[in-house]
Amino acid sequence: MIRAEILSTGDEIMSGSLVDTNAAWITRQLLQSGLEVGRISCAGDDLRELQSLIQEIAQRADIAVITGGLGPTPDDITAEAAARACGVELEQNRQALQSIEDYFARLQRPMPESNLKQALIPAGSVCLPNPAGTAPGFRLNIHNCCLFALPGVPSEMKQMFDLSVTPWIKKHLAQQLQPMSIRVISCFGISESKTAQALQGFSSSFPDIHLGFRFKFPAIQARLYCRQPAGRTYGQHMEDAVNWVKHRLGDRVFSSRDSTLQEETMQLLADQNKTLAILEGCSGGMLAHLATGTEAGSKALLLARVVHEDFQGFSRTHVDPLHSARELASEIMTDAESDFGLVNFAAKEADQTRVFMGLAGRHRTLAREFTRGYPDRQASITALSWACLNLLRLELLEVIPGNHSSNSASGEPAT
Amino acid sequence: MIRAEILSTGDEIMSGSLVDTNAAWITRQLLQSGLEVGRISCAGDDLRELQSLIQEIAQRADIAVITGGLGPTPDDITAEAAARACGVELEQNRQALQSIEDYFARLQRPMPESNLKQALIPAGSVCLPNPAGTAPGFRLNIHNCCLFALPGVPSEMKQMFDLSVTPWIKKHLAQQLQPMSIRVISCFGISESKTAQALQGFSSSFPDIHLGFRFKFPAIQARLYCRQPAGRTYGQHMEDAVNWVKHRLGDRVFSSRDSTLQEETMQLLADQNKTLAILEGCSGGMLAHLATGTEAGSKALLLARVVHEDFQGFSRTHVDPLHSARELASEIMTDAESDFGLVNFAAKEADQTRVFMGLAGRHRTLAREFTRGYPDRQASITALSWACLNLLRLELLEVIPGNHSSNSASGEPAT
Repeated sequence: MIRAEILSTGDEIMSGSLVDTNAAWITRQLLQSGLEVGRISCAGDDLRELQSLIQEIAQRADIAVITGGLGPTPDDITAEAAARACGVELEQNRQALQSIEDYFARLQRPMPESNLKQALIPAGSVCLPNPAGTAPGFRLNIHNCCLFALPGVPSEMKQMFDLSVTPWIKKHLAQQLQPMSIRVISCFGISESKTAQALQGFSSSFPDIHLGFRFKFPAIQARLYCRQPAGRTYGQHMEDAVNWVKHRLGDRVFSSRDSTLQEETMQLLADQNKTLAILEGCSGGMLAHLATGTEAGSKALLLARVVHEDFQGFSRTHVDPLHSARELASEIMTDAESDFGLVNFAAKEADQTRVFMGLAGRHRTLAREFTRGYPDRQASITALSWACLNLLRLELLEVIPGNHSSNSASGEPAT
Repeated sequence: MIRAEILSTGDEIMSGSLVDTNAAWITRQLLQSGLEVGRISCAGDDLRELQSLIQEIAQRADIAVITGGLGPTPDDITAEAAARACGVELEQNRQALQSIEDYFARLQRPMPESNLKQALIPAGSVCLPNPAGTAPGFRLNIHNCCLFALPGVPSEMKQMFDLSVTPWIKKHLAQQLQPMSIRVISCFGISESKTAQALQGFSSSFPDIHLGFRFKFPAIQARLYCRQPAGRTYGQHMEDAVNWVKHRLGDRVFSSRDSTLQEETMQLLADQNKTLAILEGCSGGMLAHLATGTEAGSKALLLARVVHEDFQGFSRTHVDPLHSARELASEIMTDAESDFGLVNFAAKEADQTRVFMGLAGRHRTLAREFTRGYPDRQASITALSWACLNLLRLELLEVIPGNHSSNSASGEPAT
């Protein structure tokens, strides 16, 4: 198999102030393209260290991807380290200079002197244009290793990877690739160990597919990995495995295409041509923020009201918080003239605060108590926002039991 | 200086499904203890790869910390790889066995056969007890390198690091330690290259302090790193450097204590005992979500209204969007009976959409056009939410020029 290595550079990483997320993303792309990733390394902005690391990697790997250190400041030294590792000089690259000039032209701003440095790349290397920033990258052969240098800013790096690295691999290494196919099945409302229990027996049904679990708060992901021998596709086989997992996990699964709960829920709403209004008493805008994360969601959300944390839907009625939840959801739906109303609020009693969710639709209303608080404030807000969206998702899928024409929902947690 | 290296192991990392956060945490601990971290490496559960990586690291480093691969399953091979790298056998360690048996005794469960494997550690190594899990670690000398092997589960790793690694370093290396102190100065509304330009001359004024930059969207961070020679503290010297940077960057600096713009803004509001109401036409709840991120913010935000993206504050008056911005801000302030009203909305004209921000206070109103759109939807929403918060922050600091008793603000962008 073709061996790839990844090198992340920068004092931010080596001071522990930045968690390197680029390497994991690049790893996934390389595996999916059909390479094997042998090692990931990180080093700071130290010329000697970087130079010797690049030399070592070039001895071992067929492909190397370096991120970071392409900026305009003096501590950006990737080009120089690569040039030294290769035994060549830096030289001004016309295409790189053009790419930087174009960037500032698009912004209608003059190019600062300091950015000139970014046009210096190792002699003999090929410039990789950066459509989204000032730092062009480069491709350079050292020994038998083809090294790609990309910027460290994730959004720029990803665009350039898709533009310059993946197509190069597919073109030049096509015959030797063994693509890894990865499928992600995302669940909400079930623990990691219960997910694992529910999927016992997977490996005897699908011995050639590796099953892994990952807790990506507040979701659990079941991940399927399969190497495809060159020339064969495993499409249907993987699809069967995905369906096996989905069948075992039921409506806890909200996605089998690596999408988020909010994307799935708001897409369901848009597909049914329905609209939504929200009242947030306990989630401080996060529910609206999640709901409007996509164009579809933004169109479907007619109104959200974020109220002060002292707001108590409960105290208005002094009776039953579940009843209040249904009432508040109906009210916001009516106010906004939307198809659904979704609310959460706290009911503060003498010695405790309980949190409730309400959902109103044209045909019925539902209410739930939210019982999954976390010690961490942001975690609780996230989990509550997810639980609200999940209640809406399950209702859109018509999987919540109860008479659809009356006010029949129980107070049991949906999750 | 004493050189440390970190090695993270595991197929979860090498499949890109897990971002390694352990390494950043360990790096910070080692730097603060006074070591230098030369490299971070990651490799999968491959015996040959791991063995040669450990040998290479032992040649270069004085201290090495390995995480992961200590579990009971066959793909947990750190102990074997370390034993081979050192040229010794694995042997059952009495203390390690005891530690595992104690763990199951506490759970009142029988110890599965498979966990016996975890008591096998390299001959000559010292067992490091794990109070929170089944996997004991070990300490082993290879050449002149002292290697610590810890489990990969972050909570277990951190406890064991504090219990076994830090005390060992402090006891055995005390005379040679040079603790690193780190300060972060965060700015908004200025580019990375302009920040660097503004801080030219820093290194001649503070030659012993390293200045680095980090783009933490949408903020720019200037980061100061300083090694303290053993026995001296650099507290005042660092403070002088921080003040030098703050003076050069002026009111673009929103924090010099590694806090966020929303924390600083909402804390200013709370300190002045003021309240806020928000109308979001273009930021879909993110502005409210940021504002309510802290307890102080949550108390100060009385009301937020998130409206449909077709909402056009502008079309109501058909005159001047800057005027509309001021009017809408005053309205939401009045509605909520708050001290400030903060709004954003889109004005859609024939062929373009422009975005405006408005801020109303008791004494005056301000309006700005927001001109920093990004191709990425979420990035634009984040940048707009930050720009709104920053407008409020600057007004709370009374640094925006203009007559404080009249309606005099210009439409120039604040950022």
